[in-house]
Parts: sequence; C-alpha cells; structure tokens
Amino acid sequence: MTSRESPGTPSVASRPLGVAMIGYAFMGKAHSNAWRNVASFFDVPVFEQKVLVGRDAGQVAAAAAKYGWAESATDWRSVLERDDIDIVDICAPGWLHAEIAIAALEAGKHVLVEKPLANTLAEAEAMTDAAKAARARGVQSMVGFNYRRVPALALARQLIAEDRVGAVRHVRAAYLQDWLADAESPMTWRLNKETAGSGALGDIASHAIDQVLFLLGDSVTEVSGRLHTFTTVRPGQHGPEAVTVDDAAWATLSLASGAIASIEVSRVATGQKNSLKLEVYGEKGTILFDLENLNELGFLDATAPVREQGFRRILVNEPDHPYLDAWWPQGHIIGWEHTFTHEIRDFLSAIGAGEAPSPAFEEGLAVQRVLAAVEESAAAKSATIQLVQPTGATPTKGA
Amino acid sequence: MTSRESPGTPSVASRPLGVAMIGYAFMGKAHSNAWRNVASFFDVPVFEQKVLVGRDAGQVAAAAAKYGWAESATDWRSVLERDDIDIVDICAPGWLHAEIAIAALEAGKHVLVEKPLANTLAEAEAMTDAAKAARARGVQSMVGFNYRRVPALALARQLIAEDRVGAVRHVRAAYLQDWLADAESPMTWRLNKETAGSGALGDIASHAIDQVLFLLGDSVTEVSGRLHTFTTVRPGQHGPEAVTVDDAAWATLSLASGAIASIEVSRVATGQKNSLKLEVYGEKGTILFDLENLNELGFLDATAPVREQGFRRILVNEPDHPYLDAWWPQGHIIGWEHTFTHEIRDFLSAIGAGEAPSPAFEEGLAVQRVLAAVEESAAAKSATIQLVQPTGATPTKGA
Amino acid sequence: MTSRESPGTPSVASRPLGVAMIGYAFMGKAHSNAWRNVASFFDVPVFEQKVLVGRDAGQVAAAAAKYGWAESATDWRSVLERDDIDIVDICAPGWLHAEIAIAALEAGKHVLVEKPLANTLAEAEAMTDAAKAARARGVQSMVGFNYRRVPALALARQLIAEDRVGAVRHVRAAYLQDWLADAESPMTWRLNKETAGSGALGDIASHAIDQVLFLLGDSVTEVSGRLHTFTTVRPGQHGPEAVTVDDAAWATLSLASGAIASIEVSRVATGQKNSLKLEVYGEKGTILFDLENLNELGFLDATAPVREQGFRRILVNEPDHPYLDAWWPQGHIIGWEHTFTHEIRDFLSAIGAGEAPSPAFEEGLAVQRVLAAVEESAAAKSATIQLVQPTGATPTKGA
Amino acid sequence: MTSRESPGTPSVASRPLGVAMIGYAFMGKAHSNAWRNVASFFDVPVFEQKVLVGRDAGQVAAAAAKYGWAESATDWRSVLERDDIDIVDICAPGWLHAEIAIAALEAGKHVLVEKPLANTLAEAEAMTDAAKAARARGVQSMVGFNYRRVPALALARQLIAEDRVGAVRHVRAAYLQDWLADAESPMTWRLNKETAGSGALGDIASHAIDQVLFLLGDSVTEVSGRLHTFTTVRPGQHGPEAVTVDDAAWATLSLASGAIASIEVSRVATGQKNSLKLEVYGEKGTILFDLENLNELGFLDATAPVREQGFRRILVNEPDHPYLDAWWPQGHIIGWEHTFTHEIRDFLSAIGAGEAPSPAFEEGLAVQRVLAAVEESAAAKSATIQLVQPTGATPTKGA
Repeated sequence: MTSRESPGTPSVASRPLGVAMIGYAFMGKAHSNAWRNVASFFDVPVFEQKVLVGRDAGQVAAAAAKYGWAESATDWRSVLERDDIDIVDICAPGWLHAEIAIAALEAGKHVLVEKPLANTLAEAEAMTDAAKAARARGVQSMVGFNYRRVPALALARQLIAEDRVGAVRHVRAAYLQDWLADAESPMTWRLNKETAGSGALGDIASHAIDQVLFLLGDSVTEVSGRLHTFTTVRPGQHGPEAVTVDDAAWATLSLASGAIASIEVSRVATGQKNSLKLEVYGEKGTILFDLENLNELGFLDATAPVREQGFRRILVNEPDHPYLDAWWPQGHIIGWEHTFTHEIRDFLSAIGAGEAPSPAFEEGLAVQRVLAAVEESAAAKSATIQLVQPTGATPTKGA
Repeated sequence: MTSRESPGTPSVASRPLGVAMIGYAFMGKAHSNAWRNVASFFDVPVFEQKVLVGRDAGQVAAAAAKYGWAESATDWRSVLERDDIDIVDICAPGWLHAEIAIAALEAGKHVLVEKPLANTLAEAEAMTDAAKAARARGVQSMVGFNYRRVPALALARQLIAEDRVGAVRHVRAAYLQDWLADAESPMTWRLNKETAGSGALGDIASHAIDQVLFLLGDSVTEVSGRLHTFTTVRPGQHGPEAVTVDDAAWATLSLASGAIASIEVSRVATGQKNSLKLEVYGEKGTILFDLENLNELGFLDATAPVREQGFRRILVNEPDHPYLDAWWPQGHIIGWEHTFTHEIRDFLSAIGAGEAPSPAFEEGLAVQRVLAAVEESAAAKSATIQLVQPTGATPTKGA
Repeated sequence: MTSRESPGTPSVASRPLGVAMIGYAFMGKAHSNAWRNVASFFDVPVFEQKVLVGRDAGQVAAAAAKYGWAESATDWRSVLERDDIDIVDICAPGWLHAEIAIAALEAGKHVLVEKPLANTLAEAEAMTDAAKAARARGVQSMVGFNYRRVPALALARQLIAEDRVGAVRHVRAAYLQDWLADAESPMTWRLNKETAGSGALGDIASHAIDQVLFLLGDSVTEVSGRLHTFTTVRPGQHGPEAVTVDDAAWATLSLASGAIASIEVSRVATGQKNSLKLEVYGEKGTILFDLENLNELGFLDATAPVREQGFRRILVNEPDHPYLDAWWPQGHIIGWEHTFTHEIRDFLSAIGAGEAPSPAFEEGLAVQRVLAAVEESAAAKSATIQLVQPTGATPTKGA
Repeated sequence: MTSRESPGTPSVASRPLGVAMIGYAFMGKAHSNAWRNVASFFDVPVFEQKVLVGRDAGQVAAAAAKYGWAESATDWRSVLERDDIDIVDICAPGWLHAEIAIAALEAGKHVLVEKPLANTLAEAEAMTDAAKAARARGVQSMVGFNYRRVPALALARQLIAEDRVGAVRHVRAAYLQDWLADAESPMTWRLNKETAGSGALGDIASHAIDQVLFLLGDSVTEVSGRLHTFTTVRPGQHGPEAVTVDDAAWATLSLASGAIASIEVSRVATGQKNSLKLEVYGEKGTILFDLENLNELGFLDATAPVREQGFRRILVNEPDHPYLDAWWPQGHIIGWEHTFTHEIRDFLSAIGAGEAPSPAFEEGLAVQRVLAAVEESAAAKSATIQLVQPTGATPTKGA
C-alpha cells in the first residue's frame, strides 16, 4: 500500500484487505476456519489470510500452513508495522488483549478481539478509549461475542425486538460446562488469577451476560453476585497448586427496563458439556435456547388460544432465518464453528461499508462492568452493587 | 327393580344404576379405579358398584373389598339374571367376550367390553349383531378403546376435524413395548393362539389402528401386512413351549380418503415401555403423540410464517382441553388410568342421555376386520388384501 | 371409642382410624382423592373417611358427598372433640394452620398439615413445639411436602444416598409457573401478605427448598435472596388493589456440606405451567427432574466410559421403583395426584407402626427458616444472612 | 505426471494428488467445502483442488473461484485425459454417474461418486464391474453414503459391533422431509422418472437402507414394498406436468441375520425437515438416532439394573468419539457438512494407503438391488420379492 494518508488511518481498499491473526490455539483454529470459509458462502470484501503470529516459530509455521495463512511470524509488533496488513484478529490470551489491540488501533488496523474484552476493567476502559479514537479516524473494532451470530439467537433478538414476547419480566441465563468436574484435573493458566483474570466468570458468564444485553437491548443497573471455587488445590507440574479463580458464579442483575436476570455459570456441572441456556419470559411469550442444540430455538406465543399454546421447537435452518440462506437446504444443520464465520462476515461487511461493527468495545466494556460488579458483590457477601452508567455511553445494541 | 317392562330392555332409572364387573386382573383393577372415582370428578348418572365377578371366590372377594365393590360373585350368568344390575363391564379375557357380551345384551344390560372386541372376526360379527339388536331396544354398548379418551388425543381429533392439519397424507402409528424382550421370559396364555387369538397384533396394533380411524374419521380399504415371532420357544411350567402368536407386526393401510397409514407394533422393542406413537402428516400441519408422555401433544402449524414454524409441545392440562376442567390446575398432569375414568364418564353420560356411546361394537368390528386382513396378508407373503366395507356400515366416528 | 387413657393421647386402634379433613378447595380435593384410593393400592391400617369440615354448610356437604366423606361439619373445634376422630388432615389456608394443628395435637389427634407449615416463623415454631410434645405422647404429625413422594424424586434420593452422584457441588432448583403472567389477572387472597404470608416464596420456593434438603439430606447455613413483584396493582372487586406479595424470588443457599444451591421461582414464567426443575451436580454424576414430566428422572453416571456417557431418561414406572409396585405395568404413567396417595400411605403406615412420619414439623420449620432468611436478605439488598441451627435440631431426613 | 506405467493405472504419488470435481450444485458445494477444509483438521495425503467441471462456463468459473478450485472446465472428458488429475469426484446428477465413473476408472482415476450409485440397476452393475476391474489395477472407488461418517452413527456401528445391543431383532428406519408438502411446489427434474430414476426412494430411502446394512453389517434377503405419489400433477413452466416419481415409500426388509427392518420415507412429512430416524432394537440394548440432531446418539443398555435403565443422550462430541479428536472441545457441535469432510478424509486415507475405501460400489449396488426390489414389490401389490445374493459378493462392511 502506497497511499496511506496519515498515520493511524485505514488503508485504501484498492487491493484485497490483508489480515493478520495473533494466536493459533483453540480460538486461533476457530477464527482461521472462519476466515478460510467465509468467502465461499457470503459476499464479503476481498481479503487475504496474510500472516499468522505466534511465539513458537516452528509451531506457528505449521499452524499457518494447516489453517490457510500465507505466512507466519513471531513478533506481533512487526506485523503491525506492515502496510499490507489492514486487519488484526486478536486470539491471544486475555492479558495481551489491551496491549495488542491498542497498538493495532493506533497503527490504523481494524481490530477484532476475542471476548472477554480484557482481564481487568482498567484495561477494558483503555481499549474502549482507543477504539473510540480510532473509530473517529475510520478504524473499526469489534469484540468477539460470537454467540450473537448463532442464527437461533439472532432470530430470538428479532422476535423480541418485534415485541413477540412482550415486555420482558425475567431472564434465566446459565452457562454450564463440566471440564473441571474431575478434582484431579490438572492446574493450568486458566485457573490462575494472574493470567486468567477470573474463572468461569470471565470465560463464560461474559457470554451469558452479553446475551442478556444483546437479546433485550437493555443495560444493567444493579448486581448481586457470588463466586465459588469447589476445588481449591489441583495437581501442578511440581506438586499441588492453589486454584485462584472461581469454578462457578451466580448473580442477579437488575436491568434498566425493570426486568431481572439471573446468571449461573459453572465448570463443574457434571454432564453439561457446553450448555449456554437462555430463557426469556415476557408478557406475550417466551424464548428458550440451549447452545448444545444451537440450531433450535424454543418459542412460545402466549397470544395464541390457550388450547393450542406450547413451546415450539423452531429448527433454525430455513433460508428465511438469519445467515441461513448462505448454507444448505432446510434441516441440514450447521456447526458451532460458523458462529465465527458469521462474525467475520459481519465484521468484513461493516469494514467494507465503512461502518462500525457491533458489538463495539463499548459493549464489551459494559459486560466487563457487570463482571467487575459481580466480583465486588461477591467480596461483600452478595450485597447489591449499583452500576453507574457512563454518560454518553453507546447504548448496548446488536446487529 | 320390579317394573321391568319386557325382557331385554333396560331398567327404568328410578334408582342408582347397578354395575357389575367381570374380571379383576389388570383391566379389572383399572376399570374399578375409574368406577370408584368418576363421580368425584364428573357429573354422571348415579350408580353403584354392585358386584365384582371372578372365578376364585376368595380372591374375587378380596378384590371386591379392595376395589370398592359391594359384593362379589363367581358365576357371571347368575349376575346377568339380577334385576338390580343395569350395566355389565366385561374385563374378562378375550375368548369370553362374545359369550358374556351377547348374553348380557340379551338380558337387557348395557355392556362395556374391553378391547379388542373379540378374538375372532366371527365372534366380533356376532357381538355386533347383538349390539345392533339391543340398541334398538335402548340397550347400549361400547368397546373400550380407552386411548380415545386421552385428552391429548381427543384434542388431536378436534384439531384434525377443524382442518388444522389439512388433508391428511400419511400417518405413522407404532406401538412399542418390551416386556417380551427377554428371550427367557416365560410362556403365558397371552402367547398361545388358542387363548389370546393373536399377539402384539390384537393386543396393541388394535389400539394403533383404532387411533388411525378415530383421529381421521376414516376407513380402511386395503391392507398389506406382516407378522413375526422372534422368540418361538419359551420356558413353560413343564419344559419348553411353542409361542404361537406374533411378537411384532407391520402393515400399511390404504384409507378411503386416499391417505396411507403405516402400522408397526412390537413387544420386543427394548427400552420402549408403553410407547404408542402417532404421527399425522397433513397439508397444513402435523400431529405427534407418544403415550409415554400422554399429557402432551405435538402440533405443527404449517400455515404460520416459515420463520417461526416448529413442533409445539402442548401440555394438555388446561381447563380448555377435553376432560381437563374436572381435574387439577394447569400443569398438574394426570395418569394413564384416567383414560378409563373418562371412558366410564362418557359411557355413563350416553346411557343417561339414552344415546349410543362411541366407539360402538361396529367400530370395534372395523378394527377387527383390519386385524384379520393383516393376518391374511401376512399368510400370503404381504400381498395386498382388499377390505369389503359392509353395506350400511356405521361409519367409524368418535365422540 | 370409650377407652381413652388420658387426654391428648391417641386412641387405641381397636377400630378403623377415623379421619377428619379440614378444607375442601384445591388441596382438599387432592387429599380426598388420596384418602379415597390409598387402600385400593396399598396395604395400610384400616381407616374411615369420617368427616369433611368447611365453613359453608351447603358446599361442604356437597363436597363431602362428592369426595367420599361420610359426613360434613362446619366447626373444626367440635370435630376435634369427637372420640371417633383419630386423624386430622389440615387443608385449610396457611393462616389457620397453627391454630388448628396445635389444638388437634393437644386433643390427641394425629395431624397432617399442608405445606408450607405456617405463614410465619413464630407460628411454625409454636407448631413444632406442639408436635414435639405430642410425639412424646405417641401423637404423630407430618407436613405435606408431597413432592417427596414423587417416585422419581424418591429414586433420586436413593441414588444420591447410595453415592451414585458423589459429593454434591451444586444444585439448581427452580419452580416456574405462569398463572399470574397476565397483568390483568385479578387480585386474590393469595396476593395479599396478610392472608398469604408471601407469594411465590412460601407457595413454591418452599417446595424447591424442601427438595434440596430432602435430596441431599443437608441443611442451610447461609442465604442471600431477592424478591420482586412485577405487577404491583391488580384489579380487585372494587377497583385496583395493591399486590403485597412477591411474584418471583431468587436465592443462593450455602449448605452445611459445602454445596451451594440456587433457587429461582416465579408465577410469571410464561409458558411454564408447573415446572419444578431440579438439577443436582455431583462429582460422580448428575440428577435432573422436571415436575411437568414427573414420571421421568434424568441421570448421568460420570463413572461410565466417556464414550458412552449421557443423560439418561429413566421412566420411573417399574415395579423396582419406589411406590410403583402398587400401580400399573411398566410404562403406564401415574398422575400428579398420586404424590398425595403416597403421602397418605406413608403417613398411615407410620401411625400404624407407632413411628414418627417424615417430614416432621421440624423439617417444615427448617424450610420456614430459609424462607424467612430469604425475606430478611431481600430486605437488606441481598446481603448474606447466617442461619443459626437450633441446638438438638432433628436432622433433615426423609423417608 | 510423466511416469505413468500403463493406461488405467493410478499415477505415482510423487506430487500432490490432483483432484477434479464434476458438478457444482448442492452436492458440489458440499463436497468442495470438504475438500477445502479436510487438511486443516486431518492428516491426509497432500492434494490440490485442481479443477471444477460444469456445463456453463461462466457459472462454473465463478463457482470454482468461490469454492477454492484452481481452474474450471466444461468438458469432463477432457479432464479425464489430464495427467495431473488423479481423483475424480462425481457430483453430477444420477443419470450421468455411470458414464463418467466408468470412463474415469478406465482412465486410471480414483473415483468418488455421490449416492445413489446410479439411476438403474443395470448402470449400477456396470459401474461395479468397472470398479472391480480398476481395483485390480490399484484404482480405487467409493460411493458417497456420507451418513456413514456421522460420528454418532459411526459410534452406533461400534456399539453394535461390540455386541452392546445384542442380537438385533428389528430396526425402524425412516427418512422424513417436507419440501414437497406444498402441492403447488413446482415440477423439477427430480420429479421426473426419466431424469431422477425415482423419487424419495432413490434419494432418501437409499440412505436409510444403507444405514441398516452399515449399522448391522447385514444383507437383505426379502423385500415387500409400496410407493405412492400424493401430488400427481404439479405446475410446470408451460402448464401442469405429471409427477412420475414417488413422494413416499414404505418397505419391510428381511435380513440374513433374521432381523426385520421397516423403512418409511417421505418428502411430504410436514414439519420434518431432514429427519433420518434410526432405531435398532436388540436383545441387550437399543440405539436411537435423528439426523436433525446429528451430534447426539440415543443408547439404552438393557443389561443395567432395571431401576436405572433409560435412554441415554450421548452428545457425540468427545475426543474419544469417531472423528472428533480433530475438531473442537467437548460440547461444541459440528454441522451436517462435515459428514463429507470425514468422507473425503477416509477416501484420501485409503488412497494414500493403497487400500480399497468403503463403501465400495458393491455396497452401493447392494442398496440399489433393494431399491429395485421395492419397486418390483410395489408394482406387484406389495408381494414379497426374494433377493438373490450375487455369488462372491463383497460383504457389506463399513469403515
């Protein structure tokens, strides 16, 4: 690219957008899959999978070859200096989000960062400031709450927005996993507060809270919460180590609309593998969802005659459903990984249109504030914490 | 009663109707439960549980005391002679149905007979002739296809009759049990053609076929069928004995409307306990049902916008649903046994109103003709059998 | 009865036990059904349905006739004076429980009282004192947490007691109904704190909490809770009236074992009719239950090879299952009402054996203490409340 | 490639395998997706997506660009002449299968052909002869019954092979769709016997029958069947046109083992989108499956104590499950399209190992014989047809 007008502005799209991705573990694999396939299903701006960045030169080179990236690199800073890179997709661990994202935005790269936005509220705030400044220069950013792109949840949001469930009274949101159910399962960086920030709270409650905000288009005013670690010591490489993050978390959230949401998340819910369960109860109807059956949406229309009311299983696989016209004929279900394909599609489309994609960092920050309030309440024996809404906050709003 | 006007006419209802029941095994227990409770929930003509009849004097006396019958007796013929008996409920084994029912009808007693109507077509025809003659004298009769009184199935029939599923194209009916899955399960009279007539065919395919006719209000024109016995020898009291009835049966039925029904029944469907599954596919919608969840009806309305179509689980427990206003508040499910409570209620109500209850013996005979055709086809290597509809047949019609 | 030895001791069982029931509304109808049928299915001490008590002479007489009671009466005090009454079943509203129960116990009558034990903690304590004193004289008492007698939940308790789920980590208990979802649904005594004590909390959270204690055999040490009324004014007979009880309640309970339970109950969960949902997550397995499918128990055995692990739907309808040998062959499901039949059976059996039935009033009081703590915490913005366990408390233990 | 030894033998693998695909409609899109992604998840021989073949030059060029093919072409014969093409994947309509496949095999190309193998039995036999001859020269071939690669069904086959369900007694196989439920849905080549061969029979009963053979490792000895067209005239481009294929089909199959399978397929089963339902009932257990929830397998182990038996929902998403170690962490479900990814993986692995992949054309022919027998029986009013097993037949056997 030769025609950059000024530092920190996006490049002119006279050539395919160049994409760099940082990180090649679980999320890197999932995002790569999305980049590799998005253009085979959706009309998106032309782009190239330029470079995959990781610390181990050999491993990152192998991953790049396997996942469809033209090159690999070990220094993310040098990648940010490249003129042929327009987009940076950050799949590195949470403690690196702020540093990389802010640098990338300042370098004029559009940024997609995995959720949660950051490990701490301070980092999230700094990132949001950087994103706001960059946005003014036409540099876009987005936080990767990929479950907004589950077609069934996008449909749920449509139904709620169209008043099909009426005024929402309460929401039940749970995210249940069991990969720590075995008390002998070993210590990892994910169980250390230094590296992970928090446990189930940041990892999966963040998704549950984001869904509440996304589905209802609402914001949180008060929080009461609790955290608990059932297994406090786990085998480490050199003997027993202390687990310093939560295994499970509970909260009730007061929403600005007057609705109340309960949140319950766990990594020790034996038998629940990846079950994000959402229930939205309104005056006119109800929405049910479970991520383990992500192609289905439960819906009850309470305005129908009582005689024929019932929870309906909508197989969200019709061309009329969000994102689905790109895929297969009806009834041919899609997998979890395509939440990322849809995310990349929406991210690229927004960049192509010169618009700000959603969820913005502000929305990631809103989730982060709730997470912090849960921690604060938990430390205060569940006493209710008021959330001060930042003045001029970008309202929580989805695609 | 002193004022009987002529032999074989029903008694004048100047006193509670006197009820006699014959048989006190499984069906006797279930019917007794219905007689004991029906008046506590429904407004029915006043009656008394007069006498329970069985072969073993001691056992029948104990059963009478336990199940709420005032007296017991061992000779059903003597009971038919009693003036204080107005109703005879026949729960004896199938091979006794014809003899008792015809005698009772000739004695002017209203008759309820368990399904299937009889063990043979000839018996069923004789019973139907007797019922027709008795009906002309005001003596009523009914065959106990109790599943017509499952509220969910009564609702299904309403929805179909109201054209909510449109023209029906095909029906899938299965009745799966597993009480013979163990090849070492012993020989019983139910596995002997002499005593049982047939196996799964008469016992449970009869229910499945009756439901097809009941739900659609249709009749059968052609049958192709198959029977099979997986375990042909079972341990008897004095060594191995031959099983002479079917373990499972399959059939396709052509219906007068142009619809096609498949029937599949089994007593060796491991893990299926009492699963009568019904699926009715029409131009406008679909009905699903499973007896193991008998308080629920599945319904899909294909006239709804595609985006929100889906199978709906109607919890058939609302006051608006058939029979349910008599029971508990919504969501408090009822048990299998109340299919009989509803049956007795409808039977008594019809008698009180001087009307013919449904299903009439003609309807039992219609099922019997299909069963016979399945046997005939099975013996002819599944070749299709035409059913001749009797001229002037009472159309198959439900409550 | 002529031979009463001393005031306040139970009568000698030289004749059938005489039963009086107070109240003939929803619970009166349900209990009557149980009394009318229990002896037809179970071997219990001989008893007679002597007298039904209610305020309106005409209505109670009609109810007595319909539900199988020999007589009716309008003054419960006079009934307590009758020597032929041995058992008093209290189905009157909660504000009458304490007065009637204490008087009955003092009169030497065995007492069954509907749940929750009382409207206030003070009443519950007084009742428990009375029960303790009476028990010493051989006079028994029981509180009617009927869901302990759902066969599936009795099985769940067995499996947990047999260590099949291992050490329990957390429990999710919800009781969701929707009969108040319509904001125009009228005011009733149940929505007035004076008469009802509380709303969803006392009515249905009491069941959820009792199940946690019953299933785990555990006790509560700390509570954080919240109450909310979504519709604060409803149409009364003479214009709008204030709703003074909760529509919904949330709580987290710390248990003595170290487990944590979440409780969520609602009367405005649109589409949920009577859904008591229980999930028990242990180190070795998991239990799932939903009252709308009360014949089923979900069970996951995490000690099985991973390849074949999964939630299992046990159709709790086998002779091997609790209470089920009395009923029908496998797969013939029973209804909600038989939770009471089983309750009466266990109550009568204990009386016959001269033993104290469970749940004792102490167990009802334990639930009441939790309810009170939820209210206290809710009033203190969800701050955690410590529960002081009474010294010498009867441990929470089930049948 | 320079070193071809003789005509009709496979090329030496001194360079990446060159792949050509013929057809770019639904199946072409699905197969392309598999080729594009297989190497990102599985270790397979190195290959290149060389050329996509279609009739319309412009459209096929666009499809090639979109789906990851280096070039496009319009003449499949010329592609067969290319030395750099080693593999031909035939996704063209059924009437072209025989001609292309035989030519490709004769040209020494490994061939994957979509199911069903052919439109007629004669074509299928010729193809099988060609495949057998080619196999002797080291040229491999496979028919694309992709559902063999659903992980849940691969697991089902394992469990059956390990005797976990015991001797199988009966199988219920249904494949229900509804894309023709609307009687006004227009005429297409798929509804014309000339072009499509048959309707639901060849299209979806072929899958159901293949699964019976695959899961049980069994063969068919006798068939009784029925075909029906519910909507016989549909709107064509120039007015009404006759539908000359079946909308639905029914059959019972006798298997060599003594088991009996029922088959029922439909394109007018309103509300059923893509529901291949399989139920395998054995002496020791049962398997259940539904393609609309393809990440789940139902399993009942009848050797467990009765008290705890129940249908188990295995979420087939563990590393221990077939194909799953390549994908995401547990509980992150995969989509329908990866049945093809697994198919291509197994096909490539077999080629790399110089082994014959399964299902071989012989297995496709076995299905075809059953389809032909269903048609023959249907034409003979469901009379039973004997199947002669070809001498020296390759036994039906899976991966």
